[in-house]
Amino acid sequence: MTAASSSIPDKLADFKVGVDTVIFSVDTEQNRLLVLLVMRHEDPYSDYWSLPGALVREGESLEATADRVLTEKIHVNNLYLEQLFTFGGPQRDPREAQNAYNVRYLSVSYFALVRYEDTALIADGVSGIAWYPLNRVPELAFDHNEILAYGYRRLRNKLEYSPVAFDVLPDTFTLSDVYQLYATVLGEDFSDYSNFRTRLLKLRILQDTGVKTSRGAGRPASLYRFDAEAFKPLKDKPMVFL
Amino acid sequence: MTAASSSIPDKLADFKVGVDTVIFSVDTEQNRLLVLLVMRHEDPYSDYWSLPGALVREGESLEATADRVLTEKIHVNNLYLEQLFTFGGPQRDPREAQNAYNVRYLSVSYFALVRYEDTALIADGVSGIAWYPLNRVPELAFDHNEILAYGYRRLRNKLEYSPVAFDVLPDTFTLSDVYQLYATVLGEDFSDYSNFRTRLLKLRILQDTGVKTSRGAGRPASLYRFDAEAFKPLKDKPMVFL
Repeated sequence: MTAASSSIPDKLADFKVGVDTVIFSVDTEQNRLLVLLVMRHEDPYSDYWSLPGALVREGESLEATADRVLTEKIHVNNLYLEQLFTFGGPQRDPREAQNAYNVRYLSVSYFALVRYEDTALIADGVSGIAWYPLNRVPELAFDHNEILAYGYRRLRNKLEYSPVAFDVLPDTFTLSDVYQLYATVLGEDFSDYSNFRTRLLKLRILQDTGVKTSRGAGRPASLYRFDAEAFKPLKDKPMVFL
Repeated sequence: MTAASSSIPDKLADFKVGVDTVIFSVDTEQNRLLVLLVMRHEDPYSDYWSLPGALVREGESLEATADRVLTEKIHVNNLYLEQLFTFGGPQRDPREAQNAYNVRYLSVSYFALVRYEDTALIADGVSGIAWYPLNRVPELAFDHNEILAYGYRRLRNKLEYSPVAFDVLPDTFTLSDVYQLYATVLGEDFSDYSNFRTRLLKLRILQDTGVKTSRGAGRPASLYRFDAEAFKPLKDKPMVFL
């Protein structure tokens, strides 16, 4: 009724809905955090890198759209997608301004962390596709840098609260491998090794395989495996890894 | 190219976008967890209770729609809305079937926990509005029972990981008040009082006011207040309350 509220017309907005995916992996050989990007070949933002995404088709659920996007881009086992956030402000997509019907573009984003070694990129001969080191990501199409930043916060959070790291480590690993994975994602100064080691062992979710491995000049280190049985009763409990 | 993939037509879906809000509060006098519901007065689902919501208008952001919904329904201080989840599957809204243009309805849900004593419901003389005890919520319109269940999981989670309880407790409180609030949200058997008390004090985020209060037949209990200064350095650290 007031001047302020009547300045927004009552007409409902019309939307197309896009699904964008933030897919991380960790190259544990070279200690790099990677994100999956594809090169756009159409306007707007032609020749820009972007998060893999597509617009939702008639009859298609959001999850089906995400699956369609990714099966065209990567081969991966046991991909578990988690909904991240919905970005829906006006003017987030330049196509809105060009469209005479005022259609808005909303983006529902999904997130996954996949095992680098189990994943193969599918190059279709036309589009560019790459695992991009996170610290070298360029200016992306649309608001995808913002979506990526949000995904990175979620990834850090999951590492702190959940055993997601063991989904991407090899089956057996040293405690130093786990530390290195955390340092790759969270930054070198996230914790000192000895504190991290103590806290990790205290959780009692790792099983000593009895096998030792020797790398470089250091002492042989014990190989561990994630103990899914021991973790089961803890599954729905709060848990802190740092 | 295959029969399976060609069974989904390539036509993009058209959407209207709704914002639905899951607003919880705790009546600390009667130890009841409450959720804000409104009565619908139009089809579909006329005369059903539903979560407060509205469809996004032209030029309006998702957050602005949520604010519009709630300022019409409740007076509340410092309402902090958090995005919950986006429900967007086909056939989630019966209006889709009735609409010749195949428009789909997507719901972006938002979540808040507000202080019961600081909140006043606005009855407009026509619609029904109520703080509904969670354990007595009836069948709601659309998929709102599912959205509410998702919101309740988020609330439990926040209680376990964050000091959100102190946003809704009075300024000063006994440890037993905190325990009762947790029990009201999580169920009586979430923890025994003495363990909870020990863990809570160990976090060092409560300040003993030096004042004691006497209620009923028990020993006088110390009154505490949340120590925002002591909490500051812990703000972005993982934290477990249970």
